[in-house]
Amino acid sequence: MIDLTAFLEAKRRIRPYTHHTPLIRSDYLSERTGGEVWLKLENHQPTGSFKVRGALNKLSQLTEAEKAQGIVAASAGNHALGVAHAAGSLNLPQVDIFVPETAPDAKLKKLRRFPVTLHLAGQTYEAAHQAAAEFAQKSGALEISAYDDLAVITGQGTVGLEVMTNLPAVDLLLVPVGGGGLLAGVATAVRHIKPTCHIVGVQPEASPAAQLSFAQNRAIDPYDHAPTIADGLAGGFGAKPFALLQQNPPEIVLVSEAKIRQAIMLLLAEQQLVIEPSGATAVAPLLSGAVDVRGKTAVCLLTGGNLAMNLLREIMNEQR
Amino acid sequence: MIDLTAFLEAKRRIRPYTHHTPLIRSDYLSERTGGEVWLKLENHQPTGSFKVRGALNKLSQLTEAEKAQGIVAASAGNHALGVAHAAGSLNLPQVDIFVPETAPDAKLKKLRRFPVTLHLAGQTYEAAHQAAAEFAQKSGALEISAYDDLAVITGQGTVGLEVMTNLPAVDLLLVPVGGGGLLAGVATAVRHIKPTCHIVGVQPEASPAAQLSFAQNRAIDPYDHAPTIADGLAGGFGAKPFALLQQNPPEIVLVSEAKIRQAIMLLLAEQQLVIEPSGATAVAPLLSGAVDVRGKTAVCLLTGGNLAMNLLREIMNEQR
Repeated sequence: MIDLTAFLEAKRRIRPYTHHTPLIRSDYLSERTGGEVWLKLENHQPTGSFKVRGALNKLSQLTEAEKAQGIVAASAGNHALGVAHAAGSLNLPQVDIFVPETAPDAKLKKLRRFPVTLHLAGQTYEAAHQAAAEFAQKSGALEISAYDDLAVITGQGTVGLEVMTNLPAVDLLLVPVGGGGLLAGVATAVRHIKPTCHIVGVQPEASPAAQLSFAQNRAIDPYDHAPTIADGLAGGFGAKPFALLQQNPPEIVLVSEAKIRQAIMLLLAEQQLVIEPSGATAVAPLLSGAVDVRGKTAVCLLTGGNLAMNLLREIMNEQR
Repeated sequence: MIDLTAFLEAKRRIRPYTHHTPLIRSDYLSERTGGEVWLKLENHQPTGSFKVRGALNKLSQLTEAEKAQGIVAASAGNHALGVAHAAGSLNLPQVDIFVPETAPDAKLKKLRRFPVTLHLAGQTYEAAHQAAAEFAQKSGALEISAYDDLAVITGQGTVGLEVMTNLPAVDLLLVPVGGGGLLAGVATAVRHIKPTCHIVGVQPEASPAAQLSFAQNRAIDPYDHAPTIADGLAGGFGAKPFALLQQNPPEIVLVSEAKIRQAIMLLLAEQQLVIEPSGATAVAPLLSGAVDVRGKTAVCLLTGGNLAMNLLREIMNEQR
């Protein structure tokens, strides 16, 4: 269990280097669903995603000896950006980042601006992760997990604190789920403050590791997922997120690739927001009706905005 | 002349209903130009553009008698949205809005959410404006000009105050120009605080009314413009903006339609920002080299985000 003080301390630690991101009402989604629908804009973070929160909370607690050893991270892109930004903010000397060759150009372009050593490794997150683990073992560098680390999870939970600060009336929170760091952090933080708030984790049908983990009562990580445009949500559900949530599992809903694409287009056309597939996933169940928010105050966590232009072009041309 | 106190009072009046919008550094544009380039995100206003500032400053100073008479506004879209939002915030009883039939769908959709009477009138801003003027004369309603009004101009100038608050180091400010309300307000406010700050007005080549007005030393309004995608900047340059600026005219640069389209694509791909043509106009001279910001701290005012999806699709398909 992570107590409320830990989240408040994390918020204090990350505050100098991150934004308290905007929470805006969506007139369009409110009308469409019959609820009060709000959007938490984590795409406004300096790196374009919430991942910088967890990375900063983790790295700011390293010992001098750990810092000197160097750090390494594997990522589909946003965790890498978070670690790179955090390491730069905290003046860490050596950072090695492993990303799959298939990472979206929007993320790779941003990563190249940071003074990190970038390794392109394999076709999937798992391949990059394995290469990072091998590198860590050989070099003695500390590997920073994207989700299976309590300090990272606590950092991600600060998103939940901010939602509760701005909109204490929230009844329902829709959270994209991949490894589970955000879900575990946000659910824990929010339930400290408002135990009745309903937490819904949203996963692509192509990678239902969280749903399977709660069904089988064990963390399934790694998970051999099908292809999905929500690159940040593909793969296993972490042991530490599972341990934090297993007593009181959130509802998990699955969404199709088609609904994620529709959510991206809708956020662009109706809200003028550029949101990447993983981020748009939180909105998808409102379109399919898988989550009913009539008469409720709901918040969708739009986790990031690093959307590849090729994918956006494709979606715009198919959804006229 | 509008004194500094007037801008501060305007800021106080509009604060409850508007945002102090973000000012963010563009790593991409800074690298590309060799300057420090910052972007002022007026697309974050509740209506998606800065126009709500002037409308609120104007409407909050009406007498009870004026309010009871009703108000009318003509607009290519954003001023209408600003007036509708301001009237709603201030509980004005009757608002009639005239927009050309050619107004972008993004703006019309948003307008329809407000409790205003919407009139689609003619093909151009000028036609809508004429219909609004006739309506005002018949009905006795007060017409709220989009730019030729000191209270409106003062409201728009609060953008300049915010820039000076967040980035007093600014050397150069790029401001899109149509009727001149924003340019006159911002230039006046900023020069009170930092007279050395260089002000650059940016106009589409298709509608160079500000440049012609300063060259001929008279306000040219209306102006028979060529077609431009920057609908918000097409038309004449107002008499009041001209009077405020004629002693010390800002530099005016013209940008091509192609460079405006390129700026829209660049803001989308590099900054994940959805910016309408009029807003992207401020960035265009940095791409063409028409304005050199090497070694300088420059701010581009991104005035609005209500971009039509058809236009964006077209631009994305042509700029691969």
